[in-house]
Amino acid sequence: MGETTKRVISSAILVPLLVFCIHYAGWYYLQLYALGVVLVILGLTEFYRFADKGDDGKPFVKSGMVFGIFIFTVYYFQLLGAQKQLPVPPEILSAIKYFQNPNAYVIPMFLILFIWSFILQILTRPLEGAIHSVSTTIVGVVYLSVTMGHFLVIMAYDYGIFYIWLVAGLTFITDGGAYFGGRWFGRHPAGLKISPKKTWEGYITGIITATIYTIGLKLTWEHFSQTELPFSIAELLIFTPVFSLISVVGDLAESAMKRDAKIKDSSSVIPGHGGVLDLVDAVIITLPCSYFYLSAKASLGFVV
Amino acid sequence: MGETTKRVISSAILVPLLVFCIHYAGWYYLQLYALGVVLVILGLTEFYRFADKGDDGKPFVKSGMVFGIFIFTVYYFQLLGAQKQLPVPPEILSAIKYFQNPNAYVIPMFLILFIWSFILQILTRPLEGAIHSVSTTIVGVVYLSVTMGHFLVIMAYDYGIFYIWLVAGLTFITDGGAYFGGRWFGRHPAGLKISPKKTWEGYITGIITATIYTIGLKLTWEHFSQTELPFSIAELLIFTPVFSLISVVGDLAESAMKRDAKIKDSSSVIPGHGGVLDLVDAVIITLPCSYFYLSAKASLGFVV
Repeated sequence: MGETTKRVISSAILVPLLVFCIHYAGWYYLQLYALGVVLVILGLTEFYRFADKGDDGKPFVKSGMVFGIFIFTVYYFQLLGAQKQLPVPPEILSAIKYFQNPNAYVIPMFLILFIWSFILQILTRPLEGAIHSVSTTIVGVVYLSVTMGHFLVIMAYDYGIFYIWLVAGLTFITDGGAYFGGRWFGRHPAGLKISPKKTWEGYITGIITATIYTIGLKLTWEHFSQTELPFSIAELLIFTPVFSLISVVGDLAESAMKRDAKIKDSSSVIPGHGGVLDLVDAVIITLPCSYFYLSAKASLGFVV
Repeated sequence: MGETTKRVISSAILVPLLVFCIHYAGWYYLQLYALGVVLVILGLTEFYRFADKGDDGKPFVKSGMVFGIFIFTVYYFQLLGAQKQLPVPPEILSAIKYFQNPNAYVIPMFLILFIWSFILQILTRPLEGAIHSVSTTIVGVVYLSVTMGHFLVIMAYDYGIFYIWLVAGLTFITDGGAYFGGRWFGRHPAGLKISPKKTWEGYITGIITATIYTIGLKLTWEHFSQTELPFSIAELLIFTPVFSLISVVGDLAESAMKRDAKIKDSSSVIPGHGGVLDLVDAVIITLPCSYFYLSAKASLGFVV
């Protein structure tokens, strides 16, 4: 079976699973939480393998996982408290009330992880590579848990599910459009050492298909939901190319890490795609950026 | 001049300067902000030198500085909005209203710095060491700006200046007590590879002198201010040893970084002490931890 076929089949399984996880509120989004925890664990495993320099320093994998899952859980509790699909019993809300504000936890957790990693380093390892070990342990949690946590807080917006479709959709369509655009029309290499095969035609195709997708999504969504979304077509015409470019940076960043680690695929858990990071590298960058965009819009007084 | 003499003279200049910066509200604490910016710049310079592994990766110094100063400034704006010593003109408050919530900025800034560092890496450097370069750039900002920012948000509490005296004081007294206690009574090495000369007697002296200091500070403060502080002696008897130990970890963490970097003093800007990190290594860990302690106390309904 060719790689493209595998890729299409994997997508045909993953996309409906993701759609179910996003749209089904009946279990308080526990299925989405579980999927997120799995992705955090697999993604951190891959990132920490990239960052493993042996005697020159390597991340504290178990500690990073524990902090990573805790931080992701705090974001989930925020979704639980904010979503309006299925009211949460008050006794559960009051039990988790101290854990519903990720902002109050993420920064303390980074500092505690910093201190804890140094304690581990001093007690269990030679001191060579201490800075690398501690730094990559922390940045892994930023790169996976904090980013995926933003997926959940976007869901908590009134139009959250639309935003997920908008941003996750445009990210994957940019990638797919660039892949096929490059194969069909690719003539002029974009000249990036890191991805020598990528062409300008590919990137432009990616941005155009993403723009068609986001406008189509908005019009279709408004037609079926009979509501006007707080996102005009003019806004989409600026938002989509910018976020397509951000998604390309996310993709290149992960390629840079793999080159640094001298590894081809981040792992092989997803047939046709490679590892979890190969699949989510762009969307874990575009989703939090879109959250910052939306929260800036909200703080300026716009409806989001 | 002996090292101890230099150390005492440096302290005799630094302590009054710090006391002025903390107590004088007449310039909206701009002198404290300026001191903090200087410490962030010098401290980041030292940390980034520790983390410089040459061709195997080195931090993006200028970008780290820009983000570090921005984040510290956001914490300063929070102090400006929250402090009650000198009312801020409403036009200034409304001009900075979007920058008064560090929690809303710190996490976005980390992700933007992550993306920006990878763009710099891809465009300007070979890919070897990409993960080390990006990770240490970000963790430097956590280690210096976020920590020192917490100094400012502690100041914003009603009893903020007392807390600074409490925590910064116990940190430096632990260090001084351990230094002299080790010299005078030291018999049994604590057995840490990283600091082979440190003795149990030194650490115990440090904790005892710190406890005497904090109880003395509380009683003196209450006597002169004629107010009862929301910190009982029983609480101090638990708080002080715990934070003395945290300060030791901060000190050891910085030693571990220097060993990793094969550097003796973090720099030589402060006669008798070495570099900025040699001086602040413990207090930049204890202060934010004490803020988390205070905010946990506040969220449980206690007065802080």
